[in-house]
Amino acid sequence: MTAYDKLRTVSTATAATAMFKRGFRNQFIQNVHPLSANQPVLVGPAFTLRYIPAREDLNPLSVFQDRAHPQRKAVEECPPGAVFVIDSRKNPRAASAGSILVTRLMKRGVAGIVTDGGFRDSPEIAQLAMPAYHQRPSAPTNLTLHQALDINVPIGCGDVAVWPGDVVVGDGEGVVVIPASIADEIADEALEMTAFEDFVTEKVNEGRSILGLYPPTDERSRDDFAAWRKARGR
Amino acid sequence: MTAYDKLRTVSTATAATAMFKRGFRNQFIQNVHPLSANQPVLVGPAFTLRYIPAREDLNPLSVFQDRAHPQRKAVEECPPGAVFVIDSRKNPRAASAGSILVTRLMKRGVAGIVTDGGFRDSPEIAQLAMPAYHQRPSAPTNLTLHQALDINVPIGCGDVAVWPGDVVVGDGEGVVVIPASIADEIADEALEMTAFEDFVTEKVNEGRSILGLYPPTDERSRDDFAAWRKARGR
Amino acid sequence: MTAYDKLRTVSTATAATAMFKRGFRNQFIQNVHPLSANQPVLVGPAFTLRYIPAREDLNPLSVFQDRAHPQRKAVEECPPGAVFVIDSRKNPRAASAGSILVTRLMKRGVAGIVTDGGFRDSPEIAQLAMPAYHQRPSAPTNLTLHQALDINVPIGCGDVAVWPGDVVVGDGEGVVVIPASIADEIADEALEMTAFEDFVTEKVNEGRSILGLYPPTDERSRDDFAAWRKARGR
Amino acid sequence: MTAYDKLRTVSTATAATAMFKRGFRNQFIQNVHPLSANQPVLVGPAFTLRYIPAREDLNPLSVFQDRAHPQRKAVEECPPGAVFVIDSRKNPRAASAGSILVTRLMKRGVAGIVTDGGFRDSPEIAQLAMPAYHQRPSAPTNLTLHQALDINVPIGCGDVAVWPGDVVVGDGEGVVVIPASIADEIADEALEMTAFEDFVTEKVNEGRSILGLYPPTDERSRDDFAAWRKARGR
Amino acid sequence: MTAYDKLRTVSTATAATAMFKRGFRNQFIQNVHPLSANQPVLVGPAFTLRYIPAREDLNPLSVFQDRAHPQRKAVEECPPGAVFVIDSRKNPRAASAGSILVTRLMKRGVAGIVTDGGFRDSPEIAQLAMPAYHQRPSAPTNLTLHQALDINVPIGCGDVAVWPGDVVVGDGEGVVVIPASIADEIADEALEMTAFEDFVTEKVNEGRSILGLYPPTDERSRDDFAAWRKARGR
Amino acid sequence: MTAYDKLRTVSTATAATAMFKRGFRNQFIQNVHPLSANQPVLVGPAFTLRYIPAREDLNPLSVFQDRAHPQRKAVEECPPGAVFVIDSRKNPRAASAGSILVTRLMKRGVAGIVTDGGFRDSPEIAQLAMPAYHQRPSAPTNLTLHQALDINVPIGCGDVAVWPGDVVVGDGEGVVVIPASIADEIADEALEMTAFEDFVTEKVNEGRSILGLYPPTDERSRDDFAAWRKARGR
Repeated sequence: MTAYDKLRTVSTATAATAMFKRGFRNQFIQNVHPLSANQPVLVGPAFTLRYIPAREDLNPLSVFQDRAHPQRKAVEECPPGAVFVIDSRKNPRAASAGSILVTRLMKRGVAGIVTDGGFRDSPEIAQLAMPAYHQRPSAPTNLTLHQALDINVPIGCGDVAVWPGDVVVGDGEGVVVIPASIADEIADEALEMTAFEDFVTEKVNEGRSILGLYPPTDERSRDDFAAWRKARGR
Repeated sequence: MTAYDKLRTVSTATAATAMFKRGFRNQFIQNVHPLSANQPVLVGPAFTLRYIPAREDLNPLSVFQDRAHPQRKAVEECPPGAVFVIDSRKNPRAASAGSILVTRLMKRGVAGIVTDGGFRDSPEIAQLAMPAYHQRPSAPTNLTLHQALDINVPIGCGDVAVWPGDVVVGDGEGVVVIPASIADEIADEALEMTAFEDFVTEKVNEGRSILGLYPPTDERSRDDFAAWRKARGR
Repeated sequence: MTAYDKLRTVSTATAATAMFKRGFRNQFIQNVHPLSANQPVLVGPAFTLRYIPAREDLNPLSVFQDRAHPQRKAVEECPPGAVFVIDSRKNPRAASAGSILVTRLMKRGVAGIVTDGGFRDSPEIAQLAMPAYHQRPSAPTNLTLHQALDINVPIGCGDVAVWPGDVVVGDGEGVVVIPASIADEIADEALEMTAFEDFVTEKVNEGRSILGLYPPTDERSRDDFAAWRKARGR
Repeated sequence: MTAYDKLRTVSTATAATAMFKRGFRNQFIQNVHPLSANQPVLVGPAFTLRYIPAREDLNPLSVFQDRAHPQRKAVEECPPGAVFVIDSRKNPRAASAGSILVTRLMKRGVAGIVTDGGFRDSPEIAQLAMPAYHQRPSAPTNLTLHQALDINVPIGCGDVAVWPGDVVVGDGEGVVVIPASIADEIADEALEMTAFEDFVTEKVNEGRSILGLYPPTDERSRDDFAAWRKARGR
Repeated sequence: MTAYDKLRTVSTATAATAMFKRGFRNQFIQNVHPLSANQPVLVGPAFTLRYIPAREDLNPLSVFQDRAHPQRKAVEECPPGAVFVIDSRKNPRAASAGSILVTRLMKRGVAGIVTDGGFRDSPEIAQLAMPAYHQRPSAPTNLTLHQALDINVPIGCGDVAVWPGDVVVGDGEGVVVIPASIADEIADEALEMTAFEDFVTEKVNEGRSILGLYPPTDERSRDDFAAWRKARGR
Repeated sequence: MTAYDKLRTVSTATAATAMFKRGFRNQFIQNVHPLSANQPVLVGPAFTLRYIPAREDLNPLSVFQDRAHPQRKAVEECPPGAVFVIDSRKNPRAASAGSILVTRLMKRGVAGIVTDGGFRDSPEIAQLAMPAYHQRPSAPTNLTLHQALDINVPIGCGDVAVWPGDVVVGDGEGVVVIPASIADEIADEALEMTAFEDFVTEKVNEGRSILGLYPPTDERSRDDFAAWRKARGR
């Protein structure tokens, strides 16, 4: 079971706590939401795109006729399995991308897409099989306010540092960024924590108090958990 | 029919207007949303928890090993039927609570939970049978930014004063706080208003103009309403 | 096929790009959302209502007994087919309108309603067959913070200038305002663009790269599009 | 001594409290600051200008060649002694006006100028003998984001309703708007309150406790104040 | 030389860095400014006042006739030498306090006052000999939006946790809060750091590069600093 | 007279209008203020520094021991005469730089410094002879929230695109960025416009109406201006 496989089974909340234990307090991308409640879980290494504010003379529609335009180039270069993360400076007043580019990413096997701005064609993107996260829908073309500049450099996204290769994990709650150097240990610990949380949830649903159980300061809680794991093979 | 029973049948909008008539202009908790469109109506007395900003030395994960930690203590002490209201200083950048604590509250018979911050494990909370309201999902553990301090003291939540025992009413729109001293009269008046609004809605759906009907400045409107009430036994 | 018919088949994103080409960069109403994911498409000429901040002495509940109150008057005067657009100064802390007025508008044949504030009775409005857009739900009566003042004057809504008669187009993403003077040409161009975007989406779904296709800098793309149009009669 | 004379001797804080006693809770223009610490006190009736968002085709620089352009017309029509109040929708990203127009207003005998946006040429305006208030400096011409539309209609400014003829009072703290109908009584009461506050300040500077003094629940405080007034002829 | 004496000679920036070294990243009160550029340095233990949102029925002007009203009581009880810190929930739309109360605090020997809201009578407070910090001026009486509730409990102020007895340090830049438990060591280290920063500033003004000097990775820098200290007796 | 010489005599407002005429609507750095009212005018080519959000493991204080740390390196490499512009993502909650680095820049002959965040040691920086602009003072070390990453790449600063070599102009109002390609023509036109504005200001101060004068639609205005220029040799 790879780190990615493990991370596909844990929540962003659990991963955030595992990182908090190691002194990482700011790895949850703020104010970014899944476009669809039903979209699959997101796991993959970050591939980034950096936007700066658009300037009118540099951003007519004709720029897209250049095959080397960074937005289009990035869409064609993002590796399959990677997560396309855009630094839109938290500005959703013009789009970060639209459904055609997002569909192309999906067809190329990209794992998902995240912007701290907004997508256009958001109802269409919400129907795609690929997970997507943004702040809010935004119809205006990206050229209105954003100029694509750099591909796969370190960026900020929703107040979080995103370095190329960091592991991006998304669920129905939002997105966390796991520094590449600790991805394995976070995956391991989060997997363990998830087993414990599942156990606790079961017990709480049976009516048990959280005192002594969560965290398991009572010996009984630890014993019960050990038995529970054994019984379930986890 | 108790005040609570009556309030279960009226909307937060109607209750807000009944309070506006008495000079209460600021009883709607701002920017707080139901986690699920299908959650039941929320009515109950406020039981509060106050957070202040977390300080790193006081908020390692180990604090939860203390059974007297205010967050955990509050979860075990909140009376059945009460509404657990958290003052998170409108900060959703770290969680106010997660699904295990919310499940425990539900199992203990608590009526619902409201924070002006955000919940973690929000997709799981959205599946629970207990109504929950927050600003937006937030994966980071509450220790990242919040320190639980006081149980059942007057607080602010979403710019509204919440005094322990105030009656909290929530629906698909949001949450209003009814001062305990006027809960009975608001329940009575809102019940009456709801009957009238139902009547008006019916008439408007039949094609009638709102002029003279809403408010009923025409005598005909008042007569029709009287007949309507009689016919429906309301 | 009228301009309105055409606009009913294009997205706000496409219309925004057509306007961007003509130098209109700010026609998307910011931070305004459909109340229901299933509501029909919105197209119609703007009919406006202007609010200013409420003053306590001028806004008791009794003002609604005046049949000439601008909010009520506007609801009865908005022409069938028009879009009722409210300037709430982007303030959702009190309602712009509630379900009874919105139902009346619907019964009168109005095409839809947009506010840059919030609606009360929002769950009921979400069930109506008429499209509605706002910032977020808001239970308090509009008198709490808004005073209706002017009917059908130029306003701002979500940072966009809305002149009476401008063409308002809304979809699942949000709302754009098309200046009346260019509505016909935008409708024409957006219709053309939509055909091309549908073609591109089909090709991308078949696995083609966006380079040379979107925009169609390759001759092959242009040829394929010509064939596609012919085959589909678009 | 006219109401205006009286208001020239009281603070905005005192006037705000006199209004609060009468149920007016929202008459302080929020987030508006004097351009100069040394500017004179501001008192006069409101003369208003309403802006809406600018649209590119309607706001080239050439619009100013029209003598009937509302911004220029308003500057020439504002009565001497009045206060020029601009509704800039709290948007300081482009200017509300610049030093030439403000100088013209000053030369015409206008009492002062207030915008909830920003002024350009703000260092020059700060040197003028006329009081001016804004949110923050803003170099871009107003045409960039603002279109002047209506002259002397009711507006919002900094979240306050401003009706033409309301009495605007400004000091080093900011600006309050006194509804015309109560200006006389507010002037009277604020004058009285100011005498009392001056007395209290003197006593507090002599070392007296505020308890029993402010408010004067002790008989001694009331006696001392009576004597103080007599001695000072206030 | 006491810790307080030392802290009177260091900047908030230096104290913030000394705390950063110990893992305290969030001790600078955000968005709070000195009322006067000339006010003295502020050092003293925190004495706190907690506000919650005001409710209309509980906050008529007559509440101040009660000598036990927490705001007035706190003003009379704050110990000489302490710093009066108010949790106004970062809301400057109504005042936290006015010049009479602040003057009383000054006369009682209190070291200074800080709110994350705003003061009324701010021009008068700016003239007092006691340092004061707020977000922005605010004329409306505190009863408009704030209800004083608790005296000397832990609070949040400008997103910082403030525990009674924490050491508050303010200069022309703003205010930092030093946890009581580390105040001595921070005072010591900040004093040392200040000596070094003074040395570096002198060298930089003489034209030296910061490389190798700041931090002193070059041996020469360390030698020069040792000589500098000796020469100046620091 | 070089373009820089010319730009030293014009205001940011005038330069903004000259750019507006050419379709540049967004060249004023938003929400950035001079640290001192007395600082000299700022003119020079942009030299940029890009920050991303800091991550705890990458930003201990020890990073500054590396001479290649981008913040320190940039300070030593910024050319004399250039303007040091920092992309702090509009986040003033930790510092962009402090007085030692700014002093070093000044000693190296740099023309000035601009950040859309905040400076620490701001009272000291305000005393320097070099112009500096920021959002608000900020004591925490930059490592708390900012990681210096790139030197002299295109960035965003206060919502404006800043490309290396663009001409940065600052006065008492704020800062505009002039694209390098149009710097000469903007300098020429702004110089002309300034002459006209000086003429208009003089006439307005003499009591003339702005109608027909500003803009000079009356022939008399144009004649008077011609005479004025001749008389003054401008």
